[in-house]
Amino acid sequence: MINVYIPALQTSAGEKAARYIDTLTKPIGSLGRLEEIAVELAAMTGEVFPTVTPPGVLVFAGDHGIVKEGVSAYPQDVTAQMALNFLQGGAAINVFSQQIDAQFKLIDIGIASDLSHKDLVQRKVKLGTASFYKEDAMTRNEAELAVQVGYEEAEELIAQGIKCLIVGEMGIGNTTSSTAILAVLTGEKVSKLAGMGTGISDEQLRHKVNVIEEALQNRHINPQDPIDIISKIGGLEIAGMTGAMLAAAAHRIPILVDGFICTVAALLATEINTQARDYMFASHESVEQGHACAMKLLGKKPLLNLNLRLGEGSGAAVTFPLLHSASLMIANMATFQSAGVSEKE
Amino acid sequence: MINVYIPALQTSAGEKAARYIDTLTKPIGSLGRLEEIAVELAAMTGEVFPTVTPPGVLVFAGDHGIVKEGVSAYPQDVTAQMALNFLQGGAAINVFSQQIDAQFKLIDIGIASDLSHKDLVQRKVKLGTASFYKEDAMTRNEAELAVQVGYEEAEELIAQGIKCLIVGEMGIGNTTSSTAILAVLTGEKVSKLAGMGTGISDEQLRHKVNVIEEALQNRHINPQDPIDIISKIGGLEIAGMTGAMLAAAAHRIPILVDGFICTVAALLATEINTQARDYMFASHESVEQGHACAMKLLGKKPLLNLNLRLGEGSGAAVTFPLLHSASLMIANMATFQSAGVSEKE
Repeated sequence: MINVYIPALQTSAGEKAARYIDTLTKPIGSLGRLEEIAVELAAMTGEVFPTVTPPGVLVFAGDHGIVKEGVSAYPQDVTAQMALNFLQGGAAINVFSQQIDAQFKLIDIGIASDLSHKDLVQRKVKLGTASFYKEDAMTRNEAELAVQVGYEEAEELIAQGIKCLIVGEMGIGNTTSSTAILAVLTGEKVSKLAGMGTGISDEQLRHKVNVIEEALQNRHINPQDPIDIISKIGGLEIAGMTGAMLAAAAHRIPILVDGFICTVAALLATEINTQARDYMFASHESVEQGHACAMKLLGKKPLLNLNLRLGEGSGAAVTFPLLHSASLMIANMATFQSAGVSEKE
Repeated sequence: MINVYIPALQTSAGEKAARYIDTLTKPIGSLGRLEEIAVELAAMTGEVFPTVTPPGVLVFAGDHGIVKEGVSAYPQDVTAQMALNFLQGGAAINVFSQQIDAQFKLIDIGIASDLSHKDLVQRKVKLGTASFYKEDAMTRNEAELAVQVGYEEAEELIAQGIKCLIVGEMGIGNTTSSTAILAVLTGEKVSKLAGMGTGISDEQLRHKVNVIEEALQNRHINPQDPIDIISKIGGLEIAGMTGAMLAAAAHRIPILVDGFICTVAALLATEINTQARDYMFASHESVEQGHACAMKLLGKKPLLNLNLRLGEGSGAAVTFPLLHSASLMIANMATFQSAGVSEKE
């Protein structure tokens, strides 16, 4: 599955959309970024009048052995507790998914305890990763399987008719894993990339940096091999997000990338197939330290800057109405000709 | 009516909202600007769980005599033609109003021709303003009446139950009037404030600057008197927007301010009653030259930066889902206690 075929953008549909937008009843270019989004959506979907509704939200939950090293502000139990909160509709991503009428699925891809709920999708690869400070987070087979799970779960939502994919995550400790992955991908110093996560102190942050630095020295990771990165660092939910984004790109479904962790997962997807990038929008500029660097490497400019740092896919869900606006503009606005409005003198 | 009573913010409701937000299942502060919006909405409405739906969109259409001086890229007829387009649902603001389930009204407050349509609210103060290059745009009575019309129309929508107000405009030539007003309010050079409007050339822009500069020399405006400013420069639709925003503030209804022209109307509202400002959110940072200066004077930081410059209230409508997200967050998210999630270690 690691050899995913991703079709090229249909630039001709994008060009047709751009020409059509210039006939709509508004000064040329006056809807700025919304016009660019509409053109990009057209090229992604191959439709001059692209649709983005309904969106789908896939949240992957998994645990990280690295929390044993004291890198997080919250105890590991919170992953499972928050998973139940997601299933009961009480988390931010639930509220924002409802707002945008999204299809929502929560996937247990690696929570460290056994959880059951009628709405939980049970695809546990293992009971949390091992601490990558001491050993590989998972085997290579497990890493591939986690990517595969994400791919399959996204394909299932796509078969159900979603037109835009948002992926989110829950995993105490996952800013630590994401920072480590980003350090491997960029060669940047860990101290430049590590941030406060869910809210640690400066002293805890220094500890987090040290843990990641030492862990990376011990793991001997091949930065050219995304599966090696995932298997040695984790996490299971990051791999699931990567797989889901690959599936969306393979099916020409636009992807709205969330904050730091999701952007790192997006980078792994582009390491597996660089064309995955063509189907991505960056939703927002997170406050989390490493996000700007990850975003730059992804080569995307975020749509919002609201100082968010929650994760779960919440920032992407909040951004979704902008994609919807862009698609409605091109579908529903009148042209100068149809409305009988005079053009520029 | 120029003496509008605007109640003070209920800061205690804002403080209660802030404390409650800190109990929700997310790291403290992790929803950034959305949390600030929720607190501001609480202080505006006096409700710890504020509601912003349904929003109301009031678009005021009026003509500007100044177009005779060749300041605009489009002929004056476009105001009436676009008004019909609004009534047929083909303009950007229609599409975005539908997206957010807004109540929509178009008010003819001063189109230069007679227009009739079942859905047009007929409140014409006069058949367009006079050219403020040669004479006062309107009388003082007409200026007061135009503000009054806006006030009454907003009050009617508020009585119908809207919980957030968006005001928009249609009026060929109105960036010229708005630039002149802003020059009066700030004392800034016209050349620093004038922009491309609906899309004029550099040469036309120099002409526009000259026209405004000479006009302002001829009009002898009292910058302390907002009604004097409106009567001498116009326009009727700007005055309508000003009145509507005053009504919203008087009724504790949050206002989502659109781009350049709307921000200038908002400044006039704060000149009439400075507390109007307390009920305003700045929606987006327009590309139009003078907008940053107007925004700074209003003392607000825009929520979006999408290079918009259309007007009509379109940027505010596109921003509305963020206010909705903020209100849904506080209303619908679980607390750590209700969800049984462990707090920080």
